[in-house]
Amino acid sequence: MDAVLVPTEEEILSLLEEKKFAKIRELFVEMNPADIAALFDEFPKDRSPVLFRLLPKELAADTFVEMETDLQTHLIQGFSDSEIRSIMDELYVDDAADLVDEMPANVVKRILANTDADTRAMINKILQYPDDSAGSLMTVEYVSLRKAMTVAEALTRIRRTGVDKETIYTCYVTDNNRTLIGLVTAKDLLLSEETAVIGDIMETNIISVHTHTDKEDVAQMFSKYNLLAMPVVDDENRLVGIVTIDDAMDVMEEEATEDIEKMAAIRPGDKPYFQTSVWQTYLARIPWLLILMVSATFTSLIITRFESVLDVSIVLSAAIPMLMDTGGNCGGQASVTIIRALSLEDVEFRDLFKVIWKELRVGVLCGISLAIVNFIKMLILHQGTVLIIMVVSLALLCAVVVAKFIGCVLPMLASKIGFDPAVMSSPFITTIVDALSLLLYVNLAIAILHIA
Amino acid sequence: MDAVLVPTEEEILSLLEEKKFAKIRELFVEMNPADIAALFDEFPKDRSPVLFRLLPKELAADTFVEMETDLQTHLIQGFSDSEIRSIMDELYVDDAADLVDEMPANVVKRILANTDADTRAMINKILQYPDDSAGSLMTVEYVSLRKAMTVAEALTRIRRTGVDKETIYTCYVTDNNRTLIGLVTAKDLLLSEETAVIGDIMETNIISVHTHTDKEDVAQMFSKYNLLAMPVVDDENRLVGIVTIDDAMDVMEEEATEDIEKMAAIRPGDKPYFQTSVWQTYLARIPWLLILMVSATFTSLIITRFESVLDVSIVLSAAIPMLMDTGGNCGGQASVTIIRALSLEDVEFRDLFKVIWKELRVGVLCGISLAIVNFIKMLILHQGTVLIIMVVSLALLCAVVVAKFIGCVLPMLASKIGFDPAVMSSPFITTIVDALSLLLYVNLAIAILHIA
Repeated sequence: MDAVLVPTEEEILSLLEEKKFAKIRELFVEMNPADIAALFDEFPKDRSPVLFRLLPKELAADTFVEMETDLQTHLIQGFSDSEIRSIMDELYVDDAADLVDEMPANVVKRILANTDADTRAMINKILQYPDDSAGSLMTVEYVSLRKAMTVAEALTRIRRTGVDKETIYTCYVTDNNRTLIGLVTAKDLLLSEETAVIGDIMETNIISVHTHTDKEDVAQMFSKYNLLAMPVVDDENRLVGIVTIDDAMDVMEEEATEDIEKMAAIRPGDKPYFQTSVWQTYLARIPWLLILMVSATFTSLIITRFESVLDVSIVLSAAIPMLMDTGGNCGGQASVTIIRALSLEDVEFRDLFKVIWKELRVGVLCGISLAIVNFIKMLILHQGTVLIIMVVSLALLCAVVVAKFIGCVLPMLASKIGFDPAVMSSPFITTIVDALSLLLYVNLAIAILHIA
Repeated sequence: MDAVLVPTEEEILSLLEEKKFAKIRELFVEMNPADIAALFDEFPKDRSPVLFRLLPKELAADTFVEMETDLQTHLIQGFSDSEIRSIMDELYVDDAADLVDEMPANVVKRILANTDADTRAMINKILQYPDDSAGSLMTVEYVSLRKAMTVAEALTRIRRTGVDKETIYTCYVTDNNRTLIGLVTAKDLLLSEETAVIGDIMETNIISVHTHTDKEDVAQMFSKYNLLAMPVVDDENRLVGIVTIDDAMDVMEEEATEDIEKMAAIRPGDKPYFQTSVWQTYLARIPWLLILMVSATFTSLIITRFESVLDVSIVLSAAIPMLMDTGGNCGGQASVTIIRALSLEDVEFRDLFKVIWKELRVGVLCGISLAIVNFIKMLILHQGTVLIIMVVSLALLCAVVVAKFIGCVLPMLASKIGFDPAVMSSPFITTIVDALSLLLYVNLAIAILHIA
């Protein structure tokens, strides 16, 4: 990567020791806000306020937005009222709302006291929407145009008001009731005649979302329709804000992380690894572990119940972990594939039978391959008689097919009844497949080995 | 969601039966290319060429890009030379290169024969880069400006050449050697005086990537720095192309899917679920299943070797699946968390000891909770003597801690030696944790139950 050369935290700290403030400022100005914020994460906390004050006003605000909540809280607590005011002036409203949402109550009070009434009203508007909705993600600072304007008038309006807008590349055309009636891109404006009328060049076939649309769906629509910004409307189709692509990208990343966590039986959090305490991590992980452990009681009951069958040969007991791991892996492959396909909308519930048919065929192919390899392996290692090896291999084949079936059906049923399919993944499926394949196994043993 | 009303495939097909072509065209024109492409997926293949010909030229090209490769191949094979030429004229060069990359050889020949020499040269340039590099992702159609231009001259240039560019919102300033020396956004241009000189307003602190930078890193930088486009340079820092955010978003989505697949022991593919044949799905899933099944031989060897210990009570054997599932789940939680944190750059290899320390504490907390619950559960269900229950509970505690340790260490070591950490996830970790916890288990049994 050919990114800009970034100084190390040691370099900055030693410049600070030597009181070379101008030099530090010079280094900061050459850097990108995201890189400066990453650097601040490494500074000792008592040094960060003095270093932060070396940043020019606009860069300070841009850097502040990129910081972790902990550090933001620490810095704000040391700020004077006028410093808070100058940061709040520079922030986009959606970032300001995020800040207010995340800070402790005493800090929020000081922030709001040092914010002008207009911005405060906009922040409150954004904060009234549920956390996972388009409304909470949007900004209310967008360029709005009127149908009757000419391109030249529109460009003048952008020049006058554009500096405070999060994006000027998509402009929204509204009527007197703030109803969204069209959009024009900056590209359209630049490539059209100055005398053209907005109403004639605007796109009226608009993709928009409702304030209460789930933010995951919003992110998915950005990727589907290749948008840079998405208008958010209320029940009366009045424009209330826009979501920009940088926020949609963050949502995509968060949602992928959440899905991955759920698939691993972790309750999803929204903080980076080192920002959560040991206790929080424990609380996120223990519920599913407990539920799954207690469910595993079924397998021990089955083993106890069929003690006499398993006693025929230690080989039968010895194969149980292999059977279960393979079943679990097969079920996990199917469920993870289907969960991801559901979330990317490659697969829908109405495809259920198509999916089952495909998974069954894949399951039979995988099962036969595994059974053959297992048969040869057990023969070579002299693990039991040919009859016993047949029981294990047949049980393996059945377990694989059952695992593929359950692995694809459960996530699809979950999505149908409005549950999150991601929870129906490997750990959960493994527990069910374990019990089923164990039952199949002992019954195959009874039938083939003629055990009473 | 308030997306545009989309007609169903039945509606379109019945209009086609009635030969109401104008009406179909009218419906299409109101729709978004992504939605039209989704509709074409549902049409019978013999109907798609006639329906595709109803699309106006530009919309046809935009829709074509959104289609699956199968359908594109089918359509192109039925196209006349002039139809191919008109599609190729409308496509952005990066999309045209993707098309050439994916089509069968005979189709590629016809495509290239019907493409003008300039475009052909640009396509070949993009195709020379490795599949997962920034070079393969970029387009060579960008707006380039000179330092000495005024804002008015720059705007004129954009008006003249902008229509063919994939984005006009970031413009790149190059010198006589095509060296990248700065960038200006369309926002800068619109908000600056018309007489201002580009050299004075341009940003010189540029984030760029090399043609060979991994596309996953490129996507990560878009999200880190909130970019809309990223310049791609060669060894001499000459600008060769740009990557736009829509392509970066697709890469993010693909990479998340690949990580999820690897975590579930599937060899990653890049096609949607129903686009892969049963055989391809089988080939993607069987290798890890075989490797993991054969590795499970260790657990059967341990069980056979310690037959006399397990024979003391069926309760000892019956607890094995529960011990292994819980160990596997704990290891999976740790590994998946670390793999995701590594890929989001929240955790680096130098954090190894910090990570181990955190996971050990979480492991002890989880282990103690699980052991206590297990102890009570086995007491209530009268599963074995108190001593045996103690053995199982202690083994559970140890297995959990070992699982958390292995689950966090293996992905980090993998990333250090340049392996893909995503492979070191649940299925792989489960196999190792199974063998280790089984060994711990039998040894605890020997020690506590005083078995010779």
